[in-house]
Amino acid sequence: MMMTGDQYRASLRDGRALFIEGERVEDPATHPLLKTAVDAAAAVYDRFYSPDPEAYSPIYIIPHNDEEQKERVEKLKGGTDMSAGTSSVSVLALATAAPDLAKAKPEYRQRIYDFIDYVRKNDLRCAEAVTDAKGNRKLRPLQQDDPDMYVHVVDRNADGVFITGCKMHISAAPIEHELVVFPTKAMRPGEEAYAISCSVPANAPGVSMINTTYAPHGEDLRHFPVSARINSPEAFIVFDRVFVPNERIFLDGETEHAATLAYALGLWERAGGGVHAREGEDRLVGLAALAAEAAGIADEPHIHDKLSTLMIFATMCRAGHEAAWSNATTNADGNLMPSTLFISATKYYHAQFHDQMVDILHDIAGALVVNAPTLADYDNPELRGVLDELFAAPGFSAEERLRLYHYIRDTTADAYGGWGSVTGKQAGGGQYAQRLVTMRNYDMERAKDLARKAVRIGNHAPAQEPVATA
Amino acid sequence: MMMTGDQYRASLRDGRALFIEGERVEDPATHPLLKTAVDAAAAVYDRFYSPDPEAYSPIYIIPHNDEEQKERVEKLKGGTDMSAGTSSVSVLALATAAPDLAKAKPEYRQRIYDFIDYVRKNDLRCAEAVTDAKGNRKLRPLQQDDPDMYVHVVDRNADGVFITGCKMHISAAPIEHELVVFPTKAMRPGEEAYAISCSVPANAPGVSMINTTYAPHGEDLRHFPVSARINSPEAFIVFDRVFVPNERIFLDGETEHAATLAYALGLWERAGGGVHAREGEDRLVGLAALAAEAAGIADEPHIHDKLSTLMIFATMCRAGHEAAWSNATTNADGNLMPSTLFISATKYYHAQFHDQMVDILHDIAGALVVNAPTLADYDNPELRGVLDELFAAPGFSAEERLRLYHYIRDTTADAYGGWGSVTGKQAGGGQYAQRLVTMRNYDMERAKDLARKAVRIGNHAPAQEPVATA
Amino acid sequence: MMMTGDQYRASLRDGRALFIEGERVEDPATHPLLKTAVDAAAAVYDRFYSPDPEAYSPIYIIPHNDEEQKERVEKLKGGTDMSAGTSSVSVLALATAAPDLAKAKPEYRQRIYDFIDYVRKNDLRCAEAVTDAKGNRKLRPLQQDDPDMYVHVVDRNADGVFITGCKMHISAAPIEHELVVFPTKAMRPGEEAYAISCSVPANAPGVSMINTTYAPHGEDLRHFPVSARINSPEAFIVFDRVFVPNERIFLDGETEHAATLAYALGLWERAGGGVHAREGEDRLVGLAALAAEAAGIADEPHIHDKLSTLMIFATMCRAGHEAAWSNATTNADGNLMPSTLFISATKYYHAQFHDQMVDILHDIAGALVVNAPTLADYDNPELRGVLDELFAAPGFSAEERLRLYHYIRDTTADAYGGWGSVTGKQAGGGQYAQRLVTMRNYDMERAKDLARKAVRIGNHAPAQEPVATA
Amino acid sequence: MMMTGDQYRASLRDGRALFIEGERVEDPATHPLLKTAVDAAAAVYDRFYSPDPEAYSPIYIIPHNDEEQKERVEKLKGGTDMSAGTSSVSVLALATAAPDLAKAKPEYRQRIYDFIDYVRKNDLRCAEAVTDAKGNRKLRPLQQDDPDMYVHVVDRNADGVFITGCKMHISAAPIEHELVVFPTKAMRPGEEAYAISCSVPANAPGVSMINTTYAPHGEDLRHFPVSARINSPEAFIVFDRVFVPNERIFLDGETEHAATLAYALGLWERAGGGVHAREGEDRLVGLAALAAEAAGIADEPHIHDKLSTLMIFATMCRAGHEAAWSNATTNADGNLMPSTLFISATKYYHAQFHDQMVDILHDIAGALVVNAPTLADYDNPELRGVLDELFAAPGFSAEERLRLYHYIRDTTADAYGGWGSVTGKQAGGGQYAQRLVTMRNYDMERAKDLARKAVRIGNHAPAQEPVATA
Repeated sequence: MMMTGDQYRASLRDGRALFIEGERVEDPATHPLLKTAVDAAAAVYDRFYSPDPEAYSPIYIIPHNDEEQKERVEKLKGGTDMSAGTSSVSVLALATAAPDLAKAKPEYRQRIYDFIDYVRKNDLRCAEAVTDAKGNRKLRPLQQDDPDMYVHVVDRNADGVFITGCKMHISAAPIEHELVVFPTKAMRPGEEAYAISCSVPANAPGVSMINTTYAPHGEDLRHFPVSARINSPEAFIVFDRVFVPNERIFLDGETEHAATLAYALGLWERAGGGVHAREGEDRLVGLAALAAEAAGIADEPHIHDKLSTLMIFATMCRAGHEAAWSNATTNADGNLMPSTLFISATKYYHAQFHDQMVDILHDIAGALVVNAPTLADYDNPELRGVLDELFAAPGFSAEERLRLYHYIRDTTADAYGGWGSVTGKQAGGGQYAQRLVTMRNYDMERAKDLARKAVRIGNHAPAQEPVATA
Repeated sequence: MMMTGDQYRASLRDGRALFIEGERVEDPATHPLLKTAVDAAAAVYDRFYSPDPEAYSPIYIIPHNDEEQKERVEKLKGGTDMSAGTSSVSVLALATAAPDLAKAKPEYRQRIYDFIDYVRKNDLRCAEAVTDAKGNRKLRPLQQDDPDMYVHVVDRNADGVFITGCKMHISAAPIEHELVVFPTKAMRPGEEAYAISCSVPANAPGVSMINTTYAPHGEDLRHFPVSARINSPEAFIVFDRVFVPNERIFLDGETEHAATLAYALGLWERAGGGVHAREGEDRLVGLAALAAEAAGIADEPHIHDKLSTLMIFATMCRAGHEAAWSNATTNADGNLMPSTLFISATKYYHAQFHDQMVDILHDIAGALVVNAPTLADYDNPELRGVLDELFAAPGFSAEERLRLYHYIRDTTADAYGGWGSVTGKQAGGGQYAQRLVTMRNYDMERAKDLARKAVRIGNHAPAQEPVATA
Repeated sequence: MMMTGDQYRASLRDGRALFIEGERVEDPATHPLLKTAVDAAAAVYDRFYSPDPEAYSPIYIIPHNDEEQKERVEKLKGGTDMSAGTSSVSVLALATAAPDLAKAKPEYRQRIYDFIDYVRKNDLRCAEAVTDAKGNRKLRPLQQDDPDMYVHVVDRNADGVFITGCKMHISAAPIEHELVVFPTKAMRPGEEAYAISCSVPANAPGVSMINTTYAPHGEDLRHFPVSARINSPEAFIVFDRVFVPNERIFLDGETEHAATLAYALGLWERAGGGVHAREGEDRLVGLAALAAEAAGIADEPHIHDKLSTLMIFATMCRAGHEAAWSNATTNADGNLMPSTLFISATKYYHAQFHDQMVDILHDIAGALVVNAPTLADYDNPELRGVLDELFAAPGFSAEERLRLYHYIRDTTADAYGGWGSVTGKQAGGGQYAQRLVTMRNYDMERAKDLARKAVRIGNHAPAQEPVATA
Repeated sequence: MMMTGDQYRASLRDGRALFIEGERVEDPATHPLLKTAVDAAAAVYDRFYSPDPEAYSPIYIIPHNDEEQKERVEKLKGGTDMSAGTSSVSVLALATAAPDLAKAKPEYRQRIYDFIDYVRKNDLRCAEAVTDAKGNRKLRPLQQDDPDMYVHVVDRNADGVFITGCKMHISAAPIEHELVVFPTKAMRPGEEAYAISCSVPANAPGVSMINTTYAPHGEDLRHFPVSARINSPEAFIVFDRVFVPNERIFLDGETEHAATLAYALGLWERAGGGVHAREGEDRLVGLAALAAEAAGIADEPHIHDKLSTLMIFATMCRAGHEAAWSNATTNADGNLMPSTLFISATKYYHAQFHDQMVDILHDIAGALVVNAPTLADYDNPELRGVLDELFAAPGFSAEERLRLYHYIRDTTADAYGGWGSVTGKQAGGGQYAQRLVTMRNYDMERAKDLARKAVRIGNHAPAQEPVATA
């Protein structure tokens, strides 16, 4: 049974232990720093709501072929909120890993599909609880001074296990229902307690969440045109002997399968990032073009250089993403997944250059990005005249032009911009993780064979070198 | 009627006026600096030869859909020689431009298809005579001190026109049959004489060619494992009142269509470059991996960094190329062409980073790239023992390892490497040209609209911002 | 007579017309968004205060030789506030330009030194009012739809001139006493009215200032460890028929000297930026090292790579700055100035890579940069235990480590960080300006001569090429 | 007693065992592939020759202060040949390391100064025999399959030691007199046999050299305007139980001092590289400017961008080098040495961007770099007319312009260019070595302290943040 936005709001008053800026929060739907995120999630509930008892949210479609994938994209067009996004990624990652986990224990597969049915039927939102607190990042989980740096099994009985530890940077977790725990990385023999994947309700006894946010504190929300409307908390989730019943355990001790889940999650996070990046980068081109027009310099050669650099970047991001889907494969359960190689290479490329593209935008738009008068200034009748004189330009009222600079600042040179820049590089794994995944998926044997043939190593006949053209 | 390699060799003794390193050449098939290129072309003739009078070389397939394109690629697999490559590009460019030129004069279209039939039936090779000598590059053709810097019509009669001028950097021209003249760029009103496209035989009276080559002069060809086998001359073609009959004229004075041909040619040159780059970049990864293995450092973290950088580069090149073909369109005559946007962005990306990738290869392989003992050293019994001791490594005999370094030097740090680096950046237009083409083909209105919606410029309702994940 | 901090505070209640976020401000010393900047300026007043009537602030030292420059640096060690910085730059720029302006009119030189005496004696602060609003940036001042986009002379009488126009991004202007007007760039014949340099008091009739700020609005100032203590307003200064008496006019119509002032100002802004950059970049290295230590990864090879990249950057910035001073020259009045060539090259280098260095810092510190719990969380006894467990590390209490992340966020990934990134690139002229200045000051004739000798162009004998080593 | 060029030539006929391209060479002064290098060395002998028995070559000046360093630079102005360069570097490195080696054994210091006297008095040339063959680069010397991969002591008697092993890439060795052996890197306890530094004559029994060269094989030397005049062999030096008398041993077993020599050598190699780079980069700017002028595009905005990029690069190289010398220090023996920190940062910067600068040169000069007609073409009266027409430009005869392209190709896009690019990055240690040296010399404690003060870690009072300007 699907939920409306209001039913969703009510569902969050379930006794969960939430903290933000030092205070305990009872109802996220009414807290000033969380309300916007709840409202955005509620709007997605309302948008997809159907009273049909069989209906379920398109965020839970698991595509099996190109058509289903296109249908999914079409239904989700226009974007959703962060909680819907993490829910999609969580179930897609579980479905991708399912056949491999079945090799460890057949019931893991069944539990995964049962869990997916459960969240679909009850229209729940799922957090991707993956990154462990880690402590000393150089040491393995068992080598930490404090064993609770990584989430792990501390006790068990016939009905389930008890877990303790801390997951950090968990997007949207305080406004979701299920916390899906994934091992943060590959585990080794001896680290069985850390090879745990499961799901627990957000209000389970022993769970508490310390939340952070980039939601603006300022009063004039026009100064934060995006971040005042769109913001999402990130949680440090502390698990203190939290009980997990057997039917919610998807991996329990089989260290050789821990990486499967981490890779599947990374793949879908990056694939999602790709969708966002693609549209986002084209918008970046557009913002730069508008900023150039507002300043009357759109036809200058150096602006053409800059805009074409942005276009090439946006186009290569799109190419990488299209290639990932045109090279998609299905796993043993028939679930479609984009090409890991293209996804990781594209994520690397995007993260490597995105901030340089923002630099170009800043260079075109100039210091007005951070120094434009506020819309409150524009409201003052003493100032409106001079601001109209200074900021109106062909194609832009003064107010529109001011909005343009505030939009650019809010999204690229203020708290939200900083959050986006840092997490954009870290989400789905930092550059180092993309390198690892690329190495794991690139066909190195073919590449070496091309080289061996060319050089004639190992009884290869002399190769015909392709010519420089055609 | 197709030609065998020997028939082709004979066909070049047609009185053409060739010069190289200051000397007149009568028979390119026997000249030490041209022979290799002729032999490579002859081998392609022999490979595709069929006595069937209807048969024609696969280099002349003009695909109309995805299947035909795949068939073409399959048949040409393994690469051809430079003269086959320029021939393909020339006819594909003409076929791409044909419907647009028909708007200027319907007979241009017919002449193009007649010409394509002619070269197919007679199994001729075609040069892409596009780049004018240009003189002062800042000045328009008519502003040059010397009017002959650009090829142009200097006279005409009822049967045709007379052209004068110079085209430079024309790959393989001295070993080809037809010189297909394309305007080098867009022309403006008043420059009608320069808006000329046509084809003339290589031995037409008034044509002479000054040729350059990177073919090695050294005597031990093992020192030039690639460039001694694969090299191709480039010509300065001087046209001195060369007569062109009407049936070989594809554009004559319609300045507004001059750019059509230049763009079509650029597209197919870059598309070809893409094929080459793709395989070539994977081979570069392989060479770097082999060099690392030979030095025993393949498992070092910094080598993993370097190899994964190469892999990401190779993968993004492949993504760009695949996207170009999955976004292919057909022109009004049904001829398939890859997406100009993706082709130009990919060419830019490739040219921007290719040399940095070569740097990485050099960094892994070290100074042995340029300082490895020669294979003649290895032949000397006094030295063989110590060279075996120094160079043999797991997976490599000493000789194979020496060959590896000479291969890398020859292709990236010697005459052929320098030629490849410089022309690789210039072929199909330099970076500036890719920027222009990208700007012309990128959907800027969509990008600006995305930005206007986001900022709310021009009565757009507040946009829903896509979330950061999924 | 020098002022104390309180005398300075009082001096700002002079009727000046200030606006911020839409409201008129009577007393900047008490306004929540301006008070911090006033307090910082007042602290500098108190620090340098001397009752000696002959004493003057070290910010007004104009060095004539290396010793005086070193003395100046020593006295200003530890940094000052923004208003002291702009005051220094303004008078140094005037002193640098003085002998050249004297060529236009000898009295300009005298007025400059009189003005410097005046601000020294009265211990006033001076704004660098340089950047005009510019409107359509492609058009010259006279071509603008609105003639007031650039500050210009609109009327004159025997005692002085009247100016109208708008200067933007004027750092610290609302908390200073004199607005020193510089032409924004070179002017051409016909633009005499725009070739105006002068100084007017901040409370002159006709002057109004619309101010912007990155001062934080949030209540918990520990969340903004730097920007809550150090922030400075930027002003749009509107001049509406402001009268300037003759003795405060430093240029009036001599278009050929307009650029002199712009270049002198740019030089000293960049030279100042250099001091800051140098210390700032070493601190960036330190922050990255601390973040690595906190995470236990300081000895990882990839961290060594990253730290050494930061060190090389910091070292090259320092080299550029040292070279600028060791190649300093004096102008005709004996005033010392650093080498423009080295200053502009270093500024370019710094601006080109600074943001990439911040990226490295973020990569090392990870998502905690933007997601670290607040210090308010740490104050909550329910949370302190788990935060101590999660964040304490060898060398860091939990609180110190949280402070580290908040410091990094505040300065590089929040409002102040965005302001710093954008204005850091624009201050003293953007990258394009550095290129221009470099071209103007680089000894191109020497470089071409080196090339001509090497190639033997123009009767040069064959050159001896230096060898690759020593 | 100094030698004349001819005496030097004769001195090389001393029975040394030289091989090149598989053949044994008796007299390098007459061998086609070695003669040019010998002639260049002989010219330096003649240039500095003095019959005064006390005179010695300025290449052997060891400066103790700034004046002596300036005098040294002045005397060596105009460059020397490779053998003079390696000789300078060898003795400067020994003199730099001397006081540290004296701590191991006082006699090492005396032997070093005796050796320097010996080579000065006899006017000998010294090779820097540093890089070991290394085999599997990941393994320590003792772990190699073949113990002879690194030069080491294999036997000893009362008078000296016997060494075996192979040093590679030893510039100019076959045309020098002394082979100064340095350990290739830091050695560890247990590797005493490898901690050997000494000097042996080039014709010592047991020494043989396999030489490589980039000297051109082509017959028309105008096609190789630089490499035909300036080329230098690189040797693989095989030591097979070569006896070293005690008085030529500078280190023998004290592993903790092995790195001292490697660092000292690296410092002087890089310092030398700096001199070369500085002049070389300014010449690169000049070449690019001439190429732009020849094509008539010197005033195009995009060319200004490119030229200013080159200028900034050249200027930063110069700044780094100047800072290295203005921060020079003396060792305990009073020998001056430039700042290691600035030298290594500058070398890194130079190597990182040099090839991109060459790319810019190629982009400006275009495909003519590799495709320009030869000077033999220009000699042909049939072609001279059209070549004059095509290539003459204001400021350039056709021949000069052709020479310009051949110069650029020879030095940047042919065998010599490839050699320069690869060895330029490896000489004095690759980028990884520069990082290590930077880390070792950067004042990290100061940087961390700046950060700790700013963040308030460890009882630091709140810091005053420097402001953004001045």
